[in-house]
Amino acid sequence: MNSVDQAKSAFVAVDWGTSSFRGWLMAADGSVLAESRGSEGMLHCAGSGGFPPVLRDHRARLGASDQLPVLICGMAGAKQGWVEAPYLTTPTRLDALHVGAIRVDTSGDVRILPGVAQAQAEQPDVMRGEETQLLGITEADFTGLVCIPGTHSKWVLIENGGIAAFTTYMTGELFSVIAQHSILMHAVEAVGPLTQDGAPFREGLATARDMPGGLTASLFRLRAAQLLGFEQRADGAARLSGLLIGSEIADATQRFGGPCQLRLMAAGSLGALYHTALEASGFDVTVIDAEQASRRGLAKAAINLWGAQFSA
Amino acid sequence: MNSVDQAKSAFVAVDWGTSSFRGWLMAADGSVLAESRGSEGMLHCAGSGGFPPVLRDHRARLGASDQLPVLICGMAGAKQGWVEAPYLTTPTRLDALHVGAIRVDTSGDVRILPGVAQAQAEQPDVMRGEETQLLGITEADFTGLVCIPGTHSKWVLIENGGIAAFTTYMTGELFSVIAQHSILMHAVEAVGPLTQDGAPFREGLATARDMPGGLTASLFRLRAAQLLGFEQRADGAARLSGLLIGSEIADATQRFGGPCQLRLMAAGSLGALYHTALEASGFDVTVIDAEQASRRGLAKAAINLWGAQFSA
Repeated sequence: MNSVDQAKSAFVAVDWGTSSFRGWLMAADGSVLAESRGSEGMLHCAGSGGFPPVLRDHRARLGASDQLPVLICGMAGAKQGWVEAPYLTTPTRLDALHVGAIRVDTSGDVRILPGVAQAQAEQPDVMRGEETQLLGITEADFTGLVCIPGTHSKWVLIENGGIAAFTTYMTGELFSVIAQHSILMHAVEAVGPLTQDGAPFREGLATARDMPGGLTASLFRLRAAQLLGFEQRADGAARLSGLLIGSEIADATQRFGGPCQLRLMAAGSLGALYHTALEASGFDVTVIDAEQASRRGLAKAAINLWGAQFSA
Repeated sequence: MNSVDQAKSAFVAVDWGTSSFRGWLMAADGSVLAESRGSEGMLHCAGSGGFPPVLRDHRARLGASDQLPVLICGMAGAKQGWVEAPYLTTPTRLDALHVGAIRVDTSGDVRILPGVAQAQAEQPDVMRGEETQLLGITEADFTGLVCIPGTHSKWVLIENGGIAAFTTYMTGELFSVIAQHSILMHAVEAVGPLTQDGAPFREGLATARDMPGGLTASLFRLRAAQLLGFEQRADGAARLSGLLIGSEIADATQRFGGPCQLRLMAAGSLGALYHTALEASGFDVTVIDAEQASRRGLAKAAINLWGAQFSA
């Protein structure tokens, strides 16, 4: 850190996830002055010395003074996290997230943003972290559909800058547990980035689209096809990915009335797979890089919280 | 063994599965003279001293002479088993299974029945063991639908005593891997036999029937419902079971043109769950105990193979 940066610093933004910590030293205008990343996610902190020493270390690495306020989003606010930041419930405006922030009983001004819940008995759902990303990538009056692929993929309907409804799919997690712990471990090789436009992936998408209720049969058929010589093991991961992503897209299309315009908030090879799959299903896709979304959302919320103080 | 039984003995029947061995000393009329069970399934044998010593031990326990022929069904005939007994392909008559039996190069007359494959690129599927059970529970001219619940549940359309088509669902295995290895491990308690007519199980069935393509979303909602206080952890296993069994039944109903008359080949609490679920979906269910099915099928095939020799 040089002294110029230090002089501009206004707050610390933290995306504290299940298995990662990402912190930034931010200027009052939302620009980034320094970054500090680590693997001390919620699971690490809950299992060791807790959250305060991890935050202290990263603040030191960022060169952030103890006077700077800190704004956190993500699993640090879960019940099993540092301090629970109770869910806001849908419908909820994204630019009001900061109102639900919980102040942590620690030195300095440290606050954790709330998650968002769809607290309906018929379609219960929760998010924690994505709401801040959504704040980061949408305008105050935005209306539209956003897809956030991942371990637990989320489809979010945003109306006039507020979360109206959302649905979570266990797509990424099912891929992992099926590939590692089921009989399909014999049918799926550990692979690098998948070739998104390969035939097995596209055929998996088509199978899921044509037989949306047949997922648990299609999974066994993936294994049977290899036993009978119709497919090679090298293609198993791409087909499994196609089946699961295709199942998600088919259901979400029906649920949210697509295909339509859609913002895809993703990165890397997973983003490319979803891009291919969504376009194959007729969606008009705008890709938004997910890496910066949390930081931008945290900056917006911090300025809403402390903006007057920064400009004083 | 007493000498009367010894005099009547005609052959040894073996159901050699993935993780279990069940052998019977049989009379020429198909009646049981003695039984020997063990945990030396295919996985055990492949990982240790192989198949011959296990068979030798069980023959001795049964008091079976070395002259008696042995007929085996199940995973011992898989590629990774003792000797591969190549699949018969659909459509195939059940009373012709013995024609596909492979003779093992060992002392005495030891044969392994084949599995059955649906060798179609669009809907590949395989069974090994169930074909023998089906032979055991159907008449020579039987036409109808059979459901065999389990780790890999099978729905089999039988026409005039032959397997016309079948579909396998990964229902039981998905329950295990999801309950043990996914985030739902926090939402599902290790339980004893489920209460088949509980509300969470029936609601899971209804959810799967109403939203057949929404399985991967319904799975996450099971977790979210508990986080939001709509359900207790004690009900998680029943709901998960309802979602997966309901998904299987909804797809099979569409695929095989049900609801209709159906033979349910099952046992114990799993059989009771499927019975409840199938009747709730409108099927006219006849329950057939699965325990005896393999032995009866082996007896029928053995008499087809060696009947003339027995009566000589």
